[in-house]
Amino acid sequence: MRTRAAVAVAAGKPLEIMEVNLAGPKAGEVLIEIKATGICHTDEFTLSGADPEGLFPAILGHEGAGVVVEVGAGVTSVKPGDHVIPLYTPECRACPSCLSQKTNLCTSIRATQGQGLMPDGTSRFSTLDGDPILHYMGCSTFSNYTVLPEIAVAKVREDAPFDKICYIGCGVTTGIGAVINTAKVEIGAKAVVFGLGGIGLNVLQGLRLAGADMIIGVDLNDDKKPMAEHFGMTHFINPKNCDNVVQEIVNLTKTPFDQIGGADYSFDCTGNVKVMRDALECTHRGWGQSIIIGVAPAGAVIETRPFQLVTGRVWKGTAFGGARGRTDVPKIVDWYMDGKIEIDPMITHTLKLDDINKGFDLMHAGESIRSVVVY
Amino acid sequence: MRTRAAVAVAAGKPLEIMEVNLAGPKAGEVLIEIKATGICHTDEFTLSGADPEGLFPAILGHEGAGVVVEVGAGVTSVKPGDHVIPLYTPECRACPSCLSQKTNLCTSIRATQGQGLMPDGTSRFSTLDGDPILHYMGCSTFSNYTVLPEIAVAKVREDAPFDKICYIGCGVTTGIGAVINTAKVEIGAKAVVFGLGGIGLNVLQGLRLAGADMIIGVDLNDDKKPMAEHFGMTHFINPKNCDNVVQEIVNLTKTPFDQIGGADYSFDCTGNVKVMRDALECTHRGWGQSIIIGVAPAGAVIETRPFQLVTGRVWKGTAFGGARGRTDVPKIVDWYMDGKIEIDPMITHTLKLDDINKGFDLMHAGESIRSVVVY
Ligand SMILES: NC(=O)c1ccc[n+]([C@@H]2O[C@H](COP(=O)([O-])OP(=O)(O)OC[C@H]3O[C@@H](n4cnc5c(N)ncnc54)[C@H](O)[C@@H]3O)[C@@H](O)[C@H]2O)c1
Ligand SMILES: NC(=O)c1ccc[n+]([C@@H]2O[C@H](COP(=O)([O-])OP(=O)(O)OC[C@H]3O[C@@H](n4cnc5c(N)ncnc54)[C@H](O)[C@@H]3O)[C@@H](O)[C@H]2O)c1
Ligand SMILES: [Zn+2]
Ligand SMILES: [Zn+2]
Ligand SMILES: [Zn+2]
Ligand SMILES: [Zn+2]
Repeated sequence: MRTRAAVAVAAGKPLEIMEVNLAGPKAGEVLIEIKATGICHTDEFTLSGADPEGLFPAILGHEGAGVVVEVGAGVTSVKPGDHVIPLYTPECRACPSCLSQKTNLCTSIRATQGQGLMPDGTSRFSTLDGDPILHYMGCSTFSNYTVLPEIAVAKVREDAPFDKICYIGCGVTTGIGAVINTAKVEIGAKAVVFGLGGIGLNVLQGLRLAGADMIIGVDLNDDKKPMAEHFGMTHFINPKNCDNVVQEIVNLTKTPFDQIGGADYSFDCTGNVKVMRDALECTHRGWGQSIIIGVAPAGAVIETRPFQLVTGRVWKGTAFGGARGRTDVPKIVDWYMDGKIEIDPMITHTLKLDDINKGFDLMHAGESIRSVVVY
Repeated sequence: MRTRAAVAVAAGKPLEIMEVNLAGPKAGEVLIEIKATGICHTDEFTLSGADPEGLFPAILGHEGAGVVVEVGAGVTSVKPGDHVIPLYTPECRACPSCLSQKTNLCTSIRATQGQGLMPDGTSRFSTLDGDPILHYMGCSTFSNYTVLPEIAVAKVREDAPFDKICYIGCGVTTGIGAVINTAKVEIGAKAVVFGLGGIGLNVLQGLRLAGADMIIGVDLNDDKKPMAEHFGMTHFINPKNCDNVVQEIVNLTKTPFDQIGGADYSFDCTGNVKVMRDALECTHRGWGQSIIIGVAPAGAVIETRPFQLVTGRVWKGTAFGGARGRTDVPKIVDWYMDGKIEIDPMITHTLKLDDINKGFDLMHAGESIRSVVVY
């Protein structure tokens, strides 16, 4: 079949909207009509050329929602008409990682996914001239129709709006999951969120959902404050207005009883390795945990004195919020529909596919939290 | 009263054996006759002058066992005649750290202990001329008699030999506790221990106790192999004999089913920050945990790419093996007496107080695992 898609033809070039060929789903695969897709920093990272593993030409996009159109042989968990969210972290439930019950990082199709291919080692996309176009993160939601492995598809309820729940395919689950699955924040905790962009806002609402008492937000941009407060931030620090952000957080978290101070949990949502160090070191001696969510530039390293860990701090990271996609994503959609979490205020811009490059411009200008393309 | 002690008069100088004055226990304090004490790397670190927080003159030693001689006002948990192990990490059961139930790092007397003083801000030790001599790590077990706060004393069974259980006051508990309390290793795990000295051997036997399947030891010195095997090591790697120790461990831990490989847990018992990075990076994607036990030189930093954490590895540290001294140390003494753990082969040398400097020489020469001074 043919479908319209935004194709990343080369690093640093705008996406090109064009008709492409899409082969039907093979065994274990699913053809999906994408109804809406978010534009994420990770797409930008790859498109810019900064991602050392980026491949071209490819159809980017990994934050979608849509409807199953056709299923390949042997597919049993979804059927045509089902509403689904594509998963860049699949959940096969049979590989060593899934069976470990200790990680969401399913490895069953990792090698081919990293090469921009379906599990059989080929691409379903090609130009009208027949040249192959690569998949991206196993999703390629910047195409109106796309093919995914069955294990990379989460079935969700049918009354949920595509143009909002597409964000659950990445940012919402990453932020909320980091709190719930990775940090396992408990009621009454004190937490700090570095970086109040799309990911940071979702960490904030995850903390509110988890019952945290003190939710400190840190951002270089004062304009982030109102929205962050809307999502649960109780205290704001702009590092430009204080000498030492670590000391500021330690002081803020002291109590008459606890004169040591420090956050119980901290989250880096900036991707800046210096911030990651501060995020670790502002946590409480003895038990503070710091979770890295941000993606650092290629080659960058984090550092600290080992004494920070020997005295009880724990350094962790999270990918896709530690969520097992097929199991957890439908629950997060329910939470949205039940009003336990909010998404609507974060979708600041809705665009047509033809205007998708405008979504990247808005991101560069820092004007959007999330731009969503509606097909 | 008067007591014989080995006094650290200045950094880099041998200890001087002399008679010193010891004031009796104040309220909440306990006078202890030390029967035996180990000589630990931490004593050496301070004595050498490398410890930026080292203070002189002081009576070093923190790995002792002895008998309560007298108790100060208000002391209820021990009485004269009780056998005890001094604790450099106290357990007050009332401070924010103890009450958090998340850490063993009691902070009730941290400030004064760090200054070489008892909780009231004074020292019990002085020269015969009346000049104060500082306490060390709240213990000062290189004195035949010493005073400790009640909260820094673990009461243990009376049939346990002092010259062996003194080692439970530091190395044994640190190594075994790192496995049990900090890593919480489960049956069937694959683990790596970097550095097969006194601490490493105790990590090995902790792993055996926890039921680990594969226990890999890494040391630059082949001579460490027989003793390490005695304590449970199943595989040995000398980094001098392989190109890349991380890759070697990854390969060794692969199975036909799990072609990713990596250790479930790793432990640094070297204090070398480069080894600490290897120890993190050789753990399994998704769930590997690396525990820092070694103490790095002042100012040294650990580093890694944040991707290592984002893909599921966890970086932790441990002090005194995460053990709550008054609660856990008596249990470890029981394990020794019940034959669940071994200590005797690690006590390679027994000395008189007059020969204590020989214990440091043996350590420098790498000839001892543990030298113990018996009073
Ligand atoms: N681990 C994962 O699974 C995962 C998934 C999606 C996104 N990410 C990453 O999360 C990060 C955040 O994404 P986002 O969409 O929220 O980005 P964003 O650009 O919308 O937000 C980043 C925020 O950090 C602030 N900031 C930048 N430098 C700062 C500093 N030094 N101190 C304090 N604040 C600072 C900015 O002002 C901005 O508000 C990115 O690195 C992204 O790649 C990770
Ligand atoms: N965290 C704590 O509570 C705590 C308590 C006690 C001791 N420690 C620390 O634990 C560390 C180990 O103490 P120990 O008494 O076992 O010391 P040790 O000197 O007896 O043993 C160290 C071992 O590491 C090996 N080694 C050195 N460099 C190596 C390298 N690059 N690669 C592989 N092996 C290497 C040596 O050959 C030796 O066998 C020290 O740093 C000590 O200060 C920590
Ligand atoms: Zn994303
Ligand atoms: Zn899997
Ligand atoms: Zn010690
Ligand atoms: Zn305490």
